[in-house]
Amino acid sequence: MTSRVETWCNILHDFPAYARRDPAPRRLEIAAGGRTTDVRPQLTLELFRQANSADRAEVPIPDDVLELYSMYRPTPLIRAKAFEQALGTKSRIYVKFEGQNAAGSHKLNSAIAQAYYFKKAGVERIVTGTGAGQWGAAISWACGRAGLGATVFMVGVSYRQKPLRPVMMRVYGGEVHESPSEVTEVGRAGRIKDPQRIGSLSIANGEAIEIARSVAGARFAVGSGENHVLLHQTIIGQEAVNQMEEIGDYPNVVTACVGAGSNFAGISFPFIRNSRKSGRNVRIIAAEPVACPKLTRGLYAYDMSDASSTTPYVRMMTLGRDVSVPGIHAGGLRYHGTSPLLSAMYQDGLFEARSFPQRKVFETAVLFARSTGMIVAPESAHALAAAADAAREATTPISVLANVSGHGLLDLSSYDAYLNSEIDDGLPDEANIARSLTLLRQRNEQLEEAI
Amino acid sequence: MTSRVETWCNILHDFPAYARRDPAPRRLEIAAGGRTTDVRPQLTLELFRQANSADRAEVPIPDDVLELYSMYRPTPLIRAKAFEQALGTKSRIYVKFEGQNAAGSHKLNSAIAQAYYFKKAGVERIVTGTGAGQWGAAISWACGRAGLGATVFMVGVSYRQKPLRPVMMRVYGGEVHESPSEVTEVGRAGRIKDPQRIGSLSIANGEAIEIARSVAGARFAVGSGENHVLLHQTIIGQEAVNQMEEIGDYPNVVTACVGAGSNFAGISFPFIRNSRKSGRNVRIIAAEPVACPKLTRGLYAYDMSDASSTTPYVRMMTLGRDVSVPGIHAGGLRYHGTSPLLSAMYQDGLFEARSFPQRKVFETAVLFARSTGMIVAPESAHALAAAADAAREATTPISVLANVSGHGLLDLSSYDAYLNSEIDDGLPDEANIARSLTLLRQRNEQLEEAI
Repeated sequence: MTSRVETWCNILHDFPAYARRDPAPRRLEIAAGGRTTDVRPQLTLELFRQANSADRAEVPIPDDVLELYSMYRPTPLIRAKAFEQALGTKSRIYVKFEGQNAAGSHKLNSAIAQAYYFKKAGVERIVTGTGAGQWGAAISWACGRAGLGATVFMVGVSYRQKPLRPVMMRVYGGEVHESPSEVTEVGRAGRIKDPQRIGSLSIANGEAIEIARSVAGARFAVGSGENHVLLHQTIIGQEAVNQMEEIGDYPNVVTACVGAGSNFAGISFPFIRNSRKSGRNVRIIAAEPVACPKLTRGLYAYDMSDASSTTPYVRMMTLGRDVSVPGIHAGGLRYHGTSPLLSAMYQDGLFEARSFPQRKVFETAVLFARSTGMIVAPESAHALAAAADAAREATTPISVLANVSGHGLLDLSSYDAYLNSEIDDGLPDEANIARSLTLLRQRNEQLEEAI
Repeated sequence: MTSRVETWCNILHDFPAYARRDPAPRRLEIAAGGRTTDVRPQLTLELFRQANSADRAEVPIPDDVLELYSMYRPTPLIRAKAFEQALGTKSRIYVKFEGQNAAGSHKLNSAIAQAYYFKKAGVERIVTGTGAGQWGAAISWACGRAGLGATVFMVGVSYRQKPLRPVMMRVYGGEVHESPSEVTEVGRAGRIKDPQRIGSLSIANGEAIEIARSVAGARFAVGSGENHVLLHQTIIGQEAVNQMEEIGDYPNVVTACVGAGSNFAGISFPFIRNSRKSGRNVRIIAAEPVACPKLTRGLYAYDMSDASSTTPYVRMMTLGRDVSVPGIHAGGLRYHGTSPLLSAMYQDGLFEARSFPQRKVFETAVLFARSTGMIVAPESAHALAAAADAAREATTPISVLANVSGHGLLDLSSYDAYLNSEIDDGLPDEANIARSLTLLRQRNEQLEEAI
């Protein structure tokens, strides 16, 4: 099958400007009081190179990683005819499905790669934060398989909404904490500020960083947002480009949901490269929830990825790290910012973004389940909602490809809530968003003055 | 791919004696008071023929069924090397995996076929009973897709142990009742006898039959046990024979779990046919829980498949329809009897049976999950336990093929209970089994005298 690929697509090669290190964050930190903390030393040298080098267009995937990929890759790319009919569109809707593996989502693509590189570097345990738990499940299995320990901090609201996901991590041998937890300072402080323990990925990551720093042989890892993670996910788009070319129906539109950006980058980078090379125009649409509209309503500003302020400043599309996001069921999309690389690309108009209310997302997901049988994760359902809109809005039939990042079998309680009309649209607290954006703007003005 | 097949394997052609209708049940019924009820008229003519005809060795699968099969078939057959290593065996263990489809189990193979034949015959709604809910999910989706209604009675203990499975049925448009329910006479009587509402497949089926008889356009359907269902499932073994031949490592042992027998028949019939033709000896092992040992400890006797005594007498391996089975997590294996066809074959020594305690089953399942990433249904884990034993007991390395009938993602709460040591071996109540077998023996003596 030609859809089997053996390299990742390094988009930094196509846009080397994005690979140049922004000197501002370090200067900002010094100006702000000389803080020298940085999580980058947590990365192994090879992962650091992957995150920063524009040298190679195609990065070879190590054989050991390819062997584990072959357990579930190439993943299927199917045409969802019954879904098209249910929508009443003449456009063709294709779905790339990443949910058919052990961990249930695309996250396994980077988990396997990271476990491989960390193990090779002599690391003994990976500590991480997870939102809805897809990353936590993936890293738990990948670590167990590689002979590494895994400690996972899972965002509280998702931990309780999806109780089977922490069980899955434990079946795979992972150690799981509901975040904010009692086992870290960051967690204990978080519990005071957030008595309902809704939590956030920034707090969960803050807890993970604290543990990674205090335990010998442990390293902090992330499941999205950083360039090396985005790189690993491009296996999705590499396959999809081939698969669409085999089918002979190159997409006019590609959609994916955006949390910190890894599945979105995974499907879109190879299409962005391919359209530049081939001159074929592909519209790329990032789908986000109205609850957390960092692309459609956020600022391109300096911010931190964690609430504990241990991570370095990065410039990204963000609502501000102190924003309070409603506890929607698409827990993986509740992160306040998004990947700095994607943010820069968004600023440059390389893709569009749209936001969707929660009930419309579930309505689409149920329609999709009844027609195709596939129960998708609430996060992934955003990509379907975007695809459905693109298909229906087209004046002449077009070809649309949606990336379905994971299955939703452990999210069925969310579907239950939707079927019982116990779900709202997840509209954000406008006053909270306004406050957070104002604070973010002020901080950025002060920081820029300080340089 | 040569593993794609277009026919079902009709084992009745190989053993025509099994196709001859046993005249005793009808005589028994008349002797017992002239009862003339019979569920067979619930079948369409084509399904009835499939259940009774020895004419054709290979039954062509209709195009519309093949088209839906192509959404997930051929299913993967993989070698579980990491599992072999974890077990410390030099034998080769292969797994045929039926869990990678919408409904999550092999049950979809017959659900699609039955929905097709019922729809073609003008039926409007299918009413059915389901144990652990794999069949209920499959028939809900298949009916929705075919434009049929689906009403499902789900065994109470499983309904509560696996709360996401009824949600899945509802997402697919099915109507689900916890059995024993309030909506039928059988259910109301069941609630009095069984105040904890553990339920059983025989009660659930009894409820379904009652509704099917009273609602116009509705028909009763079953997900296992009957010959036409077993026939539809042979797609599994048809593919597996081809896949093992492609690999070039024909199995010495084939294992599968046995409830009413459909996944077991599905994998084993084509291997039984093939060994007779090719002279290659394949040991076939049926795995059952110690909680419900109908093959290893039951009688070959006349019994009914439902507690409400509306189904006809059939001769089968059974513990007696009044036996009380512990509420083990492998709900699909709690049925008191098994397929009459399989029972006759078992009597004739065409396969072996072994029983497994619940904790050993989960121990195997966790080992399998950590090594392969696949979280399997507790039912299917019995096949893995049998495969592991066969591999380890072999004095020289052999090739073992286990049929994994479904995934266990909606059974993760059972895994949780196991990891928290809140699970026992599911040992049966010996006094209850003895009483049930005595009653069964007495009834059979009376019936035989009456003929």
